[in-house]
Amino acid sequence: MQKNLDCINRLINCFTNLPGVGYKTAERYAYKIVDSDDQFAGDFCDAIMAVKQTVKFCTRCGNFAETSTCTICDKRGEPTGSSGMLVCVVRDPRDVIAIEKSGAFKGTYHVLHGVISPLDKKGPDDINLKSLMTRIRNEQITEIIIATNPDVEGEATANYIAMLVKPLGVKTTRLAQGLALGTNLEYADQVTLTMALNNRVVM
Amino acid sequence: MQKNLDCINRLINCFTNLPGVGYKTAERYAYKIVDSDDQFAGDFCDAIMAVKQTVKFCTRCGNFAETSTCTICDKRGEPTGSSGMLVCVVRDPRDVIAIEKSGAFKGTYHVLHGVISPLDKKGPDDINLKSLMTRIRNEQITEIIIATNPDVEGEATANYIAMLVKPLGVKTTRLAQGLALGTNLEYADQVTLTMALNNRVVM
Repeated sequence: MQKNLDCINRLINCFTNLPGVGYKTAERYAYKIVDSDDQFAGDFCDAIMAVKQTVKFCTRCGNFAETSTCTICDKRGEPTGSSGMLVCVVRDPRDVIAIEKSGAFKGTYHVLHGVISPLDKKGPDDINLKSLMTRIRNEQITEIIIATNPDVEGEATANYIAMLVKPLGVKTTRLAQGLALGTNLEYADQVTLTMALNNRVVM
Repeated sequence: MQKNLDCINRLINCFTNLPGVGYKTAERYAYKIVDSDDQFAGDFCDAIMAVKQTVKFCTRCGNFAETSTCTICDKRGEPTGSSGMLVCVVRDPRDVIAIEKSGAFKGTYHVLHGVISPLDKKGPDDINLKSLMTRIRNEQITEIIIATNPDVEGEATANYIAMLVKPLGVKTTRLAQGLALGTNLEYADQVTLTMALNNRVVM
């Protein structure tokens, strides 16, 4: 029985390490590389290596950066006027991008690089929390907005951070939970509906 | 608004060129590369370059090969005994692997590297057909088994090849069409059912 060539198998194995990629999908990707020209493969390798060489993490907030601090910290790092600084705490650098796309937040971020998750053996010491406490002590932070995902691990992490931050006298808030735009009430889950009712706002 | 770093965007663009990968999926893959260690990225690049450098096509049948001829041609290239040689014509090298996995075929292959498809501007001259005719003239081939997919392009290609090969006095056959193992008659499509009825076999 003829199987794939060894080098193709190696590439298939590499692709199966990507999130959500099974053997059959990895095979399709690998054959695409085999079928493509050398230019495409070369560009691919260059892009992978460029990412590994260029992408660093901001020493202040943990966001993606090309220098020692990220563009957001460079631009908005100093408190403007008397209002002090807002810090939005997120799990991943990609969450920063999502919030930035909304355009609704003009403060700085703090990226945890994970959430507290006992099942994955991730405790408070495994995420970027210590530097948040250092920032709270050293910077004029007036409010911490906790923007972890509204799931079990995200909620646990949010509660843990609130517990740490509140005694320091810094206002701690959490993103509102309720109905998303365009939701059909009929299909909204019960927890979301309960949240939306409890957090109802005066019109 | 902060967007992704340029180098991450480049990698995302590379991933979107893979079959069936949209922007969001490519983004997930790229972040996986960003999060992974240098070892993983290095292995990935090595595997891509190894494939481009190692994988050639068999000069005889067009299958994947690491030398000038593939392992199947090397092993089964000569007709055994008086029976002559069977050649199975397939579209892709991956079809060779599928048939080899079944273990039901012991002859050689001929890989077309495509099918006749006017919509994709692929005519008979754009697929690996000339070398098939050369093989029929030079080798002791007793039967051509056409194993293109049972779809419009595959059928058209099969008919075209049969038209070319039959006048040369070589037996030309096509893979049987009928019910696949485990099919529920209720859900079988009408064309397949008609085929299965027309090609019924004596028990």
